[in-house]
Amino acid sequence: MDDPHAILLITCPDGPGLVANVAGFVYDHHGNIVHSDQHSDLDSRRFYMRIEWQLDGFALDRSEIAGAFGEVAQPFDMAWSLHFTDERSRMGVLVSRADHCLWDVLLRHRAGEFHAEVPVVVSNHPDLEPVAAHFGVDFHHVPNSKDTRAASEAAMVRILEEHRVDLVVLARYMQILTGDFVSRYRNRVINVHHSFLPAFVGARPYHQAHQRGVKIIGATSHYVIADLDQGPIIEQVIRRTSHRDSVRDLVRKGRDLEKAALARAVSLHLQHRILVVGNKTVVFD
Amino acid sequence: MDDPHAILLITCPDGPGLVANVAGFVYDHHGNIVHSDQHSDLDSRRFYMRIEWQLDGFALDRSEIAGAFGEVAQPFDMAWSLHFTDERSRMGVLVSRADHCLWDVLLRHRAGEFHAEVPVVVSNHPDLEPVAAHFGVDFHHVPNSKDTRAASEAAMVRILEEHRVDLVVLARYMQILTGDFVSRYRNRVINVHHSFLPAFVGARPYHQAHQRGVKIIGATSHYVIADLDQGPIIEQVIRRTSHRDSVRDLVRKGRDLEKAALARAVSLHLQHRILVVGNKTVVFD
Amino acid sequence: MDDPHAILLITCPDGPGLVANVAGFVYDHHGNIVHSDQHSDLDSRRFYMRIEWQLDGFALDRSEIAGAFGEVAQPFDMAWSLHFTDERSRMGVLVSRADHCLWDVLLRHRAGEFHAEVPVVVSNHPDLEPVAAHFGVDFHHVPNSKDTRAASEAAMVRILEEHRVDLVVLARYMQILTGDFVSRYRNRVINVHHSFLPAFVGARPYHQAHQRGVKIIGATSHYVIADLDQGPIIEQVIRRTSHRDSVRDLVRKGRDLEKAALARAVSLHLQHRILVVGNKTVVFD
Amino acid sequence: MDDPHAILLITCPDGPGLVANVAGFVYDHHGNIVHSDQHSDLDSRRFYMRIEWQLDGFALDRSEIAGAFGEVAQPFDMAWSLHFTDERSRMGVLVSRADHCLWDVLLRHRAGEFHAEVPVVVSNHPDLEPVAAHFGVDFHHVPNSKDTRAASEAAMVRILEEHRVDLVVLARYMQILTGDFVSRYRNRVINVHHSFLPAFVGARPYHQAHQRGVKIIGATSHYVIADLDQGPIIEQVIRRTSHRDSVRDLVRKGRDLEKAALARAVSLHLQHRILVVGNKTVVFD
Repeated sequence: MDDPHAILLITCPDGPGLVANVAGFVYDHHGNIVHSDQHSDLDSRRFYMRIEWQLDGFALDRSEIAGAFGEVAQPFDMAWSLHFTDERSRMGVLVSRADHCLWDVLLRHRAGEFHAEVPVVVSNHPDLEPVAAHFGVDFHHVPNSKDTRAASEAAMVRILEEHRVDLVVLARYMQILTGDFVSRYRNRVINVHHSFLPAFVGARPYHQAHQRGVKIIGATSHYVIADLDQGPIIEQVIRRTSHRDSVRDLVRKGRDLEKAALARAVSLHLQHRILVVGNKTVVFD
Repeated sequence: MDDPHAILLITCPDGPGLVANVAGFVYDHHGNIVHSDQHSDLDSRRFYMRIEWQLDGFALDRSEIAGAFGEVAQPFDMAWSLHFTDERSRMGVLVSRADHCLWDVLLRHRAGEFHAEVPVVVSNHPDLEPVAAHFGVDFHHVPNSKDTRAASEAAMVRILEEHRVDLVVLARYMQILTGDFVSRYRNRVINVHHSFLPAFVGARPYHQAHQRGVKIIGATSHYVIADLDQGPIIEQVIRRTSHRDSVRDLVRKGRDLEKAALARAVSLHLQHRILVVGNKTVVFD
Repeated sequence: MDDPHAILLITCPDGPGLVANVAGFVYDHHGNIVHSDQHSDLDSRRFYMRIEWQLDGFALDRSEIAGAFGEVAQPFDMAWSLHFTDERSRMGVLVSRADHCLWDVLLRHRAGEFHAEVPVVVSNHPDLEPVAAHFGVDFHHVPNSKDTRAASEAAMVRILEEHRVDLVVLARYMQILTGDFVSRYRNRVINVHHSFLPAFVGARPYHQAHQRGVKIIGATSHYVIADLDQGPIIEQVIRRTSHRDSVRDLVRKGRDLEKAALARAVSLHLQHRILVVGNKTVVFD
Repeated sequence: MDDPHAILLITCPDGPGLVANVAGFVYDHHGNIVHSDQHSDLDSRRFYMRIEWQLDGFALDRSEIAGAFGEVAQPFDMAWSLHFTDERSRMGVLVSRADHCLWDVLLRHRAGEFHAEVPVVVSNHPDLEPVAAHFGVDFHHVPNSKDTRAASEAAMVRILEEHRVDLVVLARYMQILTGDFVSRYRNRVINVHHSFLPAFVGARPYHQAHQRGVKIIGATSHYVIADLDQGPIIEQVIRRTSHRDSVRDLVRKGRDLEKAALARAVSLHLQHRILVVGNKTVVFD
């Protein structure tokens, strides 16, 4: 097992001394920085930074770090979050009937690609219970529809909270989530949309793509906000298509794109490589 | 120089005997087929074919081929066009101020990539006259704007007709063409739009892309129809982008995409590899 | 279920009348061609063709087709094979310890992507027995090493023959197959090598790639011949890498490439879209 | 014009305090960091960093910076270089007969993509003199061959030195450079090889690729070392190919790859984004 690291994600108005103060904070407490990546947007005058250091030999106990760094951050008006690589996130996966993204997520998890626990799968259909069972993951069937939205989401939240879920992954979950649900898990719900957003929002994007005659199809993973398919984009992947491809072929090719876009987004999130800024992401990769 | 070939592009309702009759026509007159590619869309019950054969030893004089093939085509209700590889298309290029696509088109032409003549460049600005001059190509400055549209297009058509242009290439021409102009050159006006259509139609697509925070940008070449950016897509190319890219970076990266998407579309058109079907293309590549 | 089609894969010296005679054969017996794709290599004077037609309404019984077509083929010295889309190939999968390609193959199979049966998995390690069991596929553990090669392969052949396997898929099988084995399944053993061949043949290609500092890594699927990693290439896929990627990162990224390269090759083979010509492939896609 | 920035490229053994000391150096003299990117290779225990800050308001005169930073660097055993964004590199371009890379480099230069002067083009053939002339760039014809190598290179060095060239770009220069020449311009000679290295080193890589039947071709830009095609790789780009592509088609497709791989490498070099480490590059992009 790797030795534990601490990670800070930081954004604030740009100005002198930001990198020096952050790096100085780590150094003053005898931390060894292993990665640091910083970007200042010269147009918006905004500062973004991700910094990761080894906890071994660090002079502060991890319970003291947030307090101490808060004093560094305050004068610069920093928005920041602190993470530890040995504290694993807890992922809840929401699915409907399509199983390819669920299999992909759970197999990658088992292969050690995701630094997380996956304690629970929730679905509006009972079909994928055996998949969850294969991996020993709890499965809950919570029917959901336009009419039962409020009660369904309440039940889902209860389940997610029981399992102390802090990241909700929509692995082709085919129901709309309300603003209430979304704001409860702000920047912690990741969806994959089966198109190259902003092209083909909404229903049946492969049919739309076939209709329009595009030569490339795509999939997009993004954080979910109240507006459908409008959230901050995390990752996009594409593949060429041709007139020989029927809608069925696009659906088949698209499954691989959906798996890839979702897996990369989840992985980036779990490694604390994503800053959400307005309706966009800064991805430190 | 290669020996001349004949090419037929064909579409009609699907049914038995189509390939056999077309190939039989070539064979009966002692032609040697070098490429044939056929696709039947099982959903729309539509047949598409491109067939290319050597004229050397072919029993029909090239002036007789259309008449003879018309008899084959008629009972099947074929829409078809006949081309000869030693008859070069005549390309007119429309430009505004940006020079990268014009340089790219003219350099590729000189390198022998385009099987065509390029007799004329027309622009609504005088700036690019020296580029045309470098290649010995006629240059005409025809100011164009919303208010002068009809007169400007009349002047442009006159110039294009004088140069017997049969393919109009919009190499970043920043004026809208009217339905009149477009229908005169139906499926013979190729534009490049600097986005991954149907995302970001209209003005300033790189600004739109930056605003939306996409992780991939693209360019799309298409035949022009009266509806802006809605014509049949021929080719799309993409490149990854990140939060580090300003709009200016997207513009710079995008220039390469625009050149590639446009050049490939022009090349496919000149090789008679594109069938337009409704608002889509069948590309035999 | 789709109606059954017949497929012919054909290669012979180029010359006039080939397409006409093949298409004429189908038409004369009232077949409806749904796809035909033909290419003549003008340098080698070689002809390649794939043709697919609906059996519904075809005048010949399927048992009569080979005999009848043989008479068409003979004067042109055609090498050809005949396939029917409702006759499913039988795939045997060889694996070692890595499970990602096996899961991928079996999940795609269950999703209906492969037109085949998968009756048996054979491995030189016992580890992946539960994966096969999950899909109800027979699993055989046949230890294999340099010293036991002959006996091991004899045992494997016995198992493959018992299950009437006609396509052997090496899903990261980490043993070398002898020329004897390979020639028994000529052009019917598909391997995936975890590099962009011909770069990094042999052992530990990700270590080699890391050592060389390449900016793109790849995976290659190919038919196996007696010479290691030298067989006809079917498909190659790639992904960008950077100095931030350790060998472990390359291995992780590479798993996705291996899955994709192998799955596409298997799918192309099962759809009878591959002609092997010398040490290269013609892929009708 | 943008305000001037300073850039430090640094590598040294990894250890605590590196980022803090470097960022502290900038901060202590009132510099505002706009980009900083740092990576520690945990396997080799090596530290890499690129840091860029605004000179406006910086307390040190630029002539004092190197001396002052040297004191920071010394205890950490840093290898480092200092650059200023308003000091433009001077590029010399070496060419033979193929003109596409030369046009591409000079057009990009004129479009403002390269932060450099291009005072001179040298060629072992007279053919491309008019291209240089079009851009008002000095052109020198220096015949070169195996037998005249020493005298030719001496003449070339004289020309490059007269033009105070500090970056030599081989835009398809088809002669081998000696170790003497290369060591004089260590890590300052960029070549583009028309294959996906390490595949197909040496002569006629497109013929080799065609022979091997690869499904993807590529181009590679790299710093030149004495061993042919073995230098540190900077960038690689690829494109799909098929059995339909003759060697001539590969050559044509490859020209676009060569232009892209070379242009990106030159651009990265001129922005001081490349650290050479052993025989590999760290690219801060």
